[in-house]
Amino acid sequence: MLDNLEMFCSLKRDIAEINIDPLQRGGILTQEARAALMEWGDGYSVCDFCSGMLDHIKNPPIEDFVHSVLPEFLGIDEVRITHGAREGKFAAMHALCEKGDTVVIDGNAHYTTVLAAERAGLKIEYAAPSKAPDYAISADSYVQAIERAYEQKGNVSMAVLTYPDGNYGNLPPAREIADACHDYSVPLLLNGAYSVGRMPINARDIGADIIVASGHKSMAASGPVGVIGAAEEYAKPLFRLSATKKNKEVELLGCTVRGAPILTLMASFPAVVQRVKHWQEEVEKARWFSAEMEKLGMTQQGEKPHNHDLMFFLAENLYQISLKAKKGRYFLYRDLKERGISGIKPGLTRQFKLSTYALTTEELEKVLQAFADIIESHKPRGS
Amino acid sequence: MLDNLEMFCSLKRDIAEINIDPLQRGGILTQEARAALMEWGDGYSVCDFCSGMLDHIKNPPIEDFVHSVLPEFLGIDEVRITHGAREGKFAAMHALCEKGDTVVIDGNAHYTTVLAAERAGLKIEYAAPSKAPDYAISADSYVQAIERAYEQKGNVSMAVLTYPDGNYGNLPPAREIADACHDYSVPLLLNGAYSVGRMPINARDIGADIIVASGHKSMAASGPVGVIGAAEEYAKPLFRLSATKKNKEVELLGCTVRGAPILTLMASFPAVVQRVKHWQEEVEKARWFSAEMEKLGMTQQGEKPHNHDLMFFLAENLYQISLKAKKGRYFLYRDLKERGISGIKPGLTRQFKLSTYALTTEELEKVLQAFADIIESHKPRGS
Repeated sequence: MLDNLEMFCSLKRDIAEINIDPLQRGGILTQEARAALMEWGDGYSVCDFCSGMLDHIKNPPIEDFVHSVLPEFLGIDEVRITHGAREGKFAAMHALCEKGDTVVIDGNAHYTTVLAAERAGLKIEYAAPSKAPDYAISADSYVQAIERAYEQKGNVSMAVLTYPDGNYGNLPPAREIADACHDYSVPLLLNGAYSVGRMPINARDIGADIIVASGHKSMAASGPVGVIGAAEEYAKPLFRLSATKKNKEVELLGCTVRGAPILTLMASFPAVVQRVKHWQEEVEKARWFSAEMEKLGMTQQGEKPHNHDLMFFLAENLYQISLKAKKGRYFLYRDLKERGISGIKPGLTRQFKLSTYALTTEELEKVLQAFADIIESHKPRGS
Repeated sequence: MLDNLEMFCSLKRDIAEINIDPLQRGGILTQEARAALMEWGDGYSVCDFCSGMLDHIKNPPIEDFVHSVLPEFLGIDEVRITHGAREGKFAAMHALCEKGDTVVIDGNAHYTTVLAAERAGLKIEYAAPSKAPDYAISADSYVQAIERAYEQKGNVSMAVLTYPDGNYGNLPPAREIADACHDYSVPLLLNGAYSVGRMPINARDIGADIIVASGHKSMAASGPVGVIGAAEEYAKPLFRLSATKKNKEVELLGCTVRGAPILTLMASFPAVVQRVKHWQEEVEKARWFSAEMEKLGMTQQGEKPHNHDLMFFLAENLYQISLKAKKGRYFLYRDLKERGISGIKPGLTRQFKLSTYALTTEELEKVLQAFADIIESHKPRGS
């Protein structure tokens, strides 16, 4: 096996011109971030002038970024760099909850929230979403989940809200949910993997005590890299120093992103600050796209009118085609690819999610035309 | 603060032509890895064709790399990708030890081993090194540490050996240490952050039950990225699946390096396999360099003759210069920089470490000449 390794040397991405994968729309690098990758690509390059703490490196100016810029951007007291949103969630749960505690999680949560809780040895009580097609999360569902945990003598030491969730792109009433949690003295962690870097988010305004974000998902950064912010009360235990190793934060194992990803996050940041200001245009575009998809016979699930670029569609018509198409359920992936579009998982037809983020109207028209053509081309002859 | 962000956009590294920083010598990218950064830089690019598990992605061929190539390269049953050696150590301790257990660590261990244990809630018993100038770690020191832990009713559930350590570059008798640990039924984790990717390492031959490595430190990868390998017995609990989320490994939070760093690790790997074969030449070069430094009045600490490119020097002569030099203790950093050399931490004079790894004899002669010139230029006039 060690004799035939050239296959790993010059691998190319096999991706279409227009990418509608929600996972990837917000992580496309700016030119500045691409240049940062080249400049800072070598291992440990950011540590040239480190005196022991990643977040206090002055050259490159990581200290300014982490201790001045990001706290203002996120509306939170203290910020650190992480490997991503999931690692931030685990760090918060591991530092702030005791094994055996209960964490309340919205029913639409990303699987990594569940894994973070499982890894930290926590029980989970779900804040249930409403039924299809809304799948809405309410403050009341959090109250009920906390009450259920109490009935089972559980110690609820954290609540997590996915904002928005990664299935339907729903934006629940975060402020109300934070207030409800605080009524029970439960801190709220906001998972902003799909919001921070796309839309305006201020943890303080929302009432979130902890916030996690993803550089590679929504901040035009090369992953893995993320951000965690905490209100002072929680920052202290979360970013506690080692008992024996001077200036080293235990929960972060000293330093987290000791490489180029942090520099790409910084290089893209001015563009990210700008694009967040144009969020309302993104919402309008998503709503228009959703309406056009529905005209083609597909049905958007989740909030309507929609408030986010990530959308989930039911497509019974495409499913029916898949039953008879030569390529079976892979027809949609290949038919879209032939038309210069990728990002819907190979094999999906009956339900899928996509994102319109940062695509032009012209590009989205091309996507809509592709769906129309595909549906038309698979119509039974003579119909 | 959010109005003046252009400073983050085009940051340049301020580094000299010859870099002797041990942290960075093994992490300089190959041309193939630089190309991989450009091709796979966008967030979540590696997930284009993922069906749920990072290590089983077939396009790009991560599955082959993780499940065939790396196990053979490391001589271990099961391998996964991590964010780096420290994250691997924590994952192993968190998965395989119970809070309150004792972990035995060599006294030369990297600070992150201590942090990993602290984060996992473990007590530490140190296997003591011998006195200066050797700082040697022996199998007997592990036996004594385990016995001390037992005297205190500790449950020793893991031992860690840093191979080599990051201060002196010492390579302790790993096989003997593994055997000693196994006599007490204690599994041994080998921290190969400074060995895997530089020199031949086979966990099975050494008797290591778990091995961690660092892509950015020693495998010519853009960080953060690392590798963890485990013998079957330990792989099962370490890579256990979630109780509720199908195919997701709890300790890894599902996926770890969901970005370009894994592709740089793969792209550089053929070159890494080749360079490991030339390890003996690197050792000869280090020994020659050490002897030349000693001729200039500095003293190498640790093993002699030395067996690794990372070396620690005492330099009383440079310290004496710093007491009178205009720039004080920063004179050495600046005098070396003026001669095209960087990598010794600013402010250090009396003791410092450096690496000769993958530098040519000509480059190392330039380094030696620089030290000679600097010592000469600071001699009191007339002497």
